[in-house]
Amino acid sequence: MVPGQLKLSTTSRMEMIDITDEVEHIVQSESVSSGVIQLFNPHTTAGLTINEGADPDVCRDILKGLAHIVPRDLGYRHAEGNSAAHIMTLLTGGALTVLIENGKILLGTWQKIFFCEFDGPRARTVRWKIVADSR
Amino acid sequence: MVPGQLKLSTTSRMEMIDITDEVEHIVQSESVSSGVIQLFNPHTTAGLTINEGADPDVCRDILKGLAHIVPRDLGYRHAEGNSAAHIMTLLTGGALTVLIENGKILLGTWQKIFFCEFDGPRARTVRWKIVADSR
Amino acid sequence: MVPGQLKLSTTSRMEMIDITDEVEHIVQSESVSSGVIQLFNPHTTAGLTINEGADPDVCRDILKGLAHIVPRDLGYRHAEGNSAAHIMTLLTGGALTVLIENGKILLGTWQKIFFCEFDGPRARTVRWKIVADSR
Repeated sequence: MVPGQLKLSTTSRMEMIDITDEVEHIVQSESVSSGVIQLFNPHTTAGLTINEGADPDVCRDILKGLAHIVPRDLGYRHAEGNSAAHIMTLLTGGALTVLIENGKILLGTWQKIFFCEFDGPRARTVRWKIVADSR
Repeated sequence: MVPGQLKLSTTSRMEMIDITDEVEHIVQSESVSSGVIQLFNPHTTAGLTINEGADPDVCRDILKGLAHIVPRDLGYRHAEGNSAAHIMTLLTGGALTVLIENGKILLGTWQKIFFCEFDGPRARTVRWKIVADSR
Repeated sequence: MVPGQLKLSTTSRMEMIDITDEVEHIVQSESVSSGVIQLFNPHTTAGLTINEGADPDVCRDILKGLAHIVPRDLGYRHAEGNSAAHIMTLLTGGALTVLIENGKILLGTWQKIFFCEFDGPRARTVRWKIVADSR
């Protein structure tokens, strides 16, 4: 299937944005009953991940943890000053494969799909591609 | 193909469980000669990874490293007290795509597939879906 | 499609090698117009990631960050002395799904695909498999 894109605007330097509803909407719009949806982040200072969405404190704690793990200054050489964000991108990963079954994305009870901004605020895009089962 | 699931019981707070034989068994049961198997972890305090399985000290060292990298207490706000496990889930990732060739999963010499428990002991599940080559 | 492999020689203990052109070449050689290419790292002390390729300082900063995040010595037990490299492999991940559209791999403006060596120098391999769209 032809790939598509999802547009986002982030509003903070570091932020996790729940895109589950948008992904679910894409799957339903494409009328795919069974297959996978590939999500791909084309940015180098952002990531995609799946984690708990029920309590917003979980995302806050995750961002706090990342900021602790990756020092913002470590004598980096990259002149843009956002090397910590590039490292967070490596740690988080930038692609997700989500299973589709019975026309819905298959997530665990507490799971939501998040776009992770590490160097915002910026206009961002997530690319997607659905691979439907052959029958 | 219809997705399936693998049931696990973890016995420690942090633990890596080798599920390679179970995944190999699924591929053989489904009689898939060539394609990929998508493994998906539906939990938010656990992950899936591939690493060395020959020396059990490697897994012990990995868990020791993760416990060092992600502080168990950092003034987190999530009331359940398992924010470190949620962060480890982000760092590890929760989905794996494993290639299938000649009816077997394609792994490197020292590689095994591990379910990573970060907030056990718990009953856990791994979802899987095989996408066979059209030929 | 039949999987293939890409051979690499790393020259340092820690190193990121841009393999984007090689991956692009594979996609063009296989004459795939639309689909995905699965890249798989069969090693347990190396990884695959996508990050900025324009300024080589970004890779240097990423490696510096990883060396800071993962202590080289932490009372590890694995006798080979490369436990830090195994942990970096978990953090980085070892498989990538890259979208193919109009006969080319779909990457963001600044993105390049990198093989990450964490315990070199060594002879290394990247496995790949293309899944073309059914039409």
